[in-house]
Amino acid sequence: MDLQYALELIGVFFFAISGALAIQDKGHDWFGAGFTAFVTAIGGGSLRDMLLGAYPLVWIGNVAFLYAIFAGILFTFLFYRFLAKLRKTLFLFDTLGIGFFTILGVEKTLSLGFSLEVAAIMGMFSAVMGGVIRDTLTNEIPILFRKEVYASACLAGAVLYLVCSHYGLSRDINLLLSITAIIVIRLVAVKYKLSLPVWGSR
Amino acid sequence: MDLQYALELIGVFFFAISGALAIQDKGHDWFGAGFTAFVTAIGGGSLRDMLLGAYPLVWIGNVAFLYAIFAGILFTFLFYRFLAKLRKTLFLFDTLGIGFFTILGVEKTLSLGFSLEVAAIMGMFSAVMGGVIRDTLTNEIPILFRKEVYASACLAGAVLYLVCSHYGLSRDINLLLSITAIIVIRLVAVKYKLSLPVWGSR
Amino acid sequence: MDLQYALELIGVFFFAISGALAIQDKGHDWFGAGFTAFVTAIGGGSLRDMLLGAYPLVWIGNVAFLYAIFAGILFTFLFYRFLAKLRKTLFLFDTLGIGFFTILGVEKTLSLGFSLEVAAIMGMFSAVMGGVIRDTLTNEIPILFRKEVYASACLAGAVLYLVCSHYGLSRDINLLLSITAIIVIRLVAVKYKLSLPVWGSR
Repeated sequence: MDLQYALELIGVFFFAISGALAIQDKGHDWFGAGFTAFVTAIGGGSLRDMLLGAYPLVWIGNVAFLYAIFAGILFTFLFYRFLAKLRKTLFLFDTLGIGFFTILGVEKTLSLGFSLEVAAIMGMFSAVMGGVIRDTLTNEIPILFRKEVYASACLAGAVLYLVCSHYGLSRDINLLLSITAIIVIRLVAVKYKLSLPVWGSR
Repeated sequence: MDLQYALELIGVFFFAISGALAIQDKGHDWFGAGFTAFVTAIGGGSLRDMLLGAYPLVWIGNVAFLYAIFAGILFTFLFYRFLAKLRKTLFLFDTLGIGFFTILGVEKTLSLGFSLEVAAIMGMFSAVMGGVIRDTLTNEIPILFRKEVYASACLAGAVLYLVCSHYGLSRDINLLLSITAIIVIRLVAVKYKLSLPVWGSR
Repeated sequence: MDLQYALELIGVFFFAISGALAIQDKGHDWFGAGFTAFVTAIGGGSLRDMLLGAYPLVWIGNVAFLYAIFAGILFTFLFYRFLAKLRKTLFLFDTLGIGFFTILGVEKTLSLGFSLEVAAIMGMFSAVMGGVIRDTLTNEIPILFRKEVYASACLAGAVLYLVCSHYGLSRDINLLLSITAIIVIRLVAVKYKLSLPVWGSR
């Protein structure tokens, strides 16, 4: 449990960094950058918990998450030039982030007694909806509709976790396996520019 | 009650189809199409229930709604060319959908003990907000701001239901009357290109 | 308490007017204008209460708020030409509105037992998120990202209130002081076109 808590804090920290960097060419002020980072970091988990009625929301019940976000924003501010050069590293952090958040979201949903189908959807929502809300606010086409195998990698990983769990795989190995699957699917898709077929073009 | 349940499932099925068809010219992949269909189908009812604090949300508490949505997406995938020719038929299904969802939303809100005014607003929200969320995500001007007498037909039907209910009309006849009113208002408005006056152009 | 209630009703009334005027050049119909006014007026408080799980939402539990919004829409309709000339006066009303709503939001959050950090964020959300949702629906860049010192003035006022409260300032004086601070910061920023530094331009 302590490991999970640490992972969640680290995930929020990295999501805040990726949010603060996402608006770098838009001419927003500091406040706008901080707000964007905040929404990116808390959006997915908040939407999940509001849909499930799981109150209080994680960051509202535990102020440590707010400080992890502030730390991410401050870190981005202090090391901006350094981070801007690190695009590839950051892409890796975002990928790690969606991997962890998907499976943490699945587990939380199951622990509240909801169905497997709902758990799979909520796992994906936890990981990607922060970015979707951010993109909607900044008038971008949401990441979901643009990127190679992004949310679908999360959904695939969530389903894999549920299937392995059904067949009795131990939680630790399942966690490792499913998160790795999400990360590998995403990395391979970006590397080889794979994407799902276009809808309606037949 | 069984009839209402069947109608809700059918409504969700048709909303999913209309969502999956809505993005046909945007070059989204399968996942984006499925996501759009999903949001269109569950958005209005989910927002209504989150505003009312009526947990669990319908599709989270009853997995049958998820399968109705999946069926709608699969159906659209299998019969894409056929459906794309059927624009007029689909417009009819969407119109049937908003008629049913409006009155179902009104009844649910009343059954939870909220006021008549809130019931009218929630009826309209149930019917149109799925489409509004879909349009916001895909960077369109929401349907609400574009279409001839769309949400206003729902609001008018909701008010009609509440007035008739106040004067003691039996539920079955009231249901039929109000849903028909929404459908007729909408069909007449589209047929004769009627719209409400433009705001602020005086 | 009676004063606070009156202020809230007046605030909602003015927010509805500012929402109804915001779309004047967009060619929306009456319904679209009313819908926009409604969302502007209830959006911030609704999002705050949904995030906190504070049910029922203010306007759902007390129908007087709905009538204050309808009154604002009707007022704008009747005195449209007059109001359109009054841009500066309206800017003043919006500024008064965000001042009051910020501190009311802080107090409500604290009264529900949440932390100071959450109270500051919820105060700001109460004041600005109605406008953000309105701008997102109408495909504008949210006010938050455009305006000189807007949401940041609210956040500063919320923090000031919390600091003064910590040091034992009486509630009445604190209320007056914090609301005045928000209004003055905003007015000075607009007057002298002050803004926070641009993010990432170093």
